[in-house]
Amino acid sequence: MPFLRFDVIEGWSDADLQKLLDVTHEVLVETLHVPTRDRYQVVHRHPRSCVIALDTGLGIARTDRLVILQLTSRPRQKASKLEFYRVLAERLSSACGIAPTDLVINFVINDDEDWSFGLGRAQFMTGELH
Amino acid sequence: MPFLRFDVIEGWSDADLQKLLDVTHEVLVETLHVPTRDRYQVVHRHPRSCVIALDTGLGIARTDRLVILQLTSRPRQKASKLEFYRVLAERLSSACGIAPTDLVINFVINDDEDWSFGLGRAQFMTGELH
Amino acid sequence: MPFLRFDVIEGWSDADLQKLLDVTHEVLVETLHVPTRDRYQVVHRHPRSCVIALDTGLGIARTDRLVILQLTSRPRQKASKLEFYRVLAERLSSACGIAPTDLVINFVINDDEDWSFGLGRAQFMTGELH
Repeated sequence: MPFLRFDVIEGWSDADLQKLLDVTHEVLVETLHVPTRDRYQVVHRHPRSCVIALDTGLGIARTDRLVILQLTSRPRQKASKLEFYRVLAERLSSACGIAPTDLVINFVINDDEDWSFGLGRAQFMTGELH
Repeated sequence: MPFLRFDVIEGWSDADLQKLLDVTHEVLVETLHVPTRDRYQVVHRHPRSCVIALDTGLGIARTDRLVILQLTSRPRQKASKLEFYRVLAERLSSACGIAPTDLVINFVINDDEDWSFGLGRAQFMTGELH
Repeated sequence: MPFLRFDVIEGWSDADLQKLLDVTHEVLVETLHVPTRDRYQVVHRHPRSCVIALDTGLGIARTDRLVILQLTSRPRQKASKLEFYRVLAERLSSACGIAPTDLVINFVINDDEDWSFGLGRAQFMTGELH
């Protein structure tokens, strides 16, 4: 169920983008323990002038391969989120060549009643999902 | 006030898109009881490769007419949200030919102080809106 | 840390867009007291048909220079948010010629553990940021 919105700067090949989505989902399944088919991802490709990401004074340099990832999810344990950040940075580096300095992530938290996966039903409320 | 962000796959005609927005707003007014002019909608049209929606194991097949709808709203009663999911799926099917299997919805909840509708004012705080 | 997502209608020059982003960040620093390098901004430019913003009955007329701004942030004082709305409307008017009637803003609130600014770390948790 997390819904993932990626913002990247144009210039990615379709293959690289697909790999980014695949690896991110793989890490999501591993660290947040969601079902394999719990995959909802959207990518926005922006002109360079439409994305600004500095570093809050942390001394982190960004490149045009920057990935800003916003996840909307029902509540998750703090430890799971920290694990997700850590493993995603490692895996995107090793599998996609994306620098850990190019990954900015935030979660937006909602509740079980805030989701409908289709058919006009709220599947966490009907008991179809837990 | 809910702010609605639609993500769809490119290929929609302007007329079909307009109908999607109109019908969704009509259902919002009916089920969440917002004022008629309480309408804030944005649509993102994506290449096919930039949208992935599986089914969390629910056995729901998606097509390229998929609609992912994210609503940001102040708190709403659970019953109103469930009604919104149900009626929207029915109405988009009957009025727009969109399959109920092609509709994924989530709400993000904020608070009254989190809204300014113009003029630099927070209209829920000033008493201009309730 | 606030992450800012702007939705505008296409037709802006790059220079005007840059000015919008610069002035908004300047006001954010002044009113929410974030560090100067705490800047994360993304802009979506939409065809006219993909953006609808009415007025919730407030009698506010919109033009094609409409700016819809959604900020994701950890909790902020109500007074700071109200100040942000007010000063942003004034400053965009005086510095960018954007009418205060063309500015719609909402905040989405999350928590310290919901942010990673890079390197796979949650910098509010590690103590690198407060």
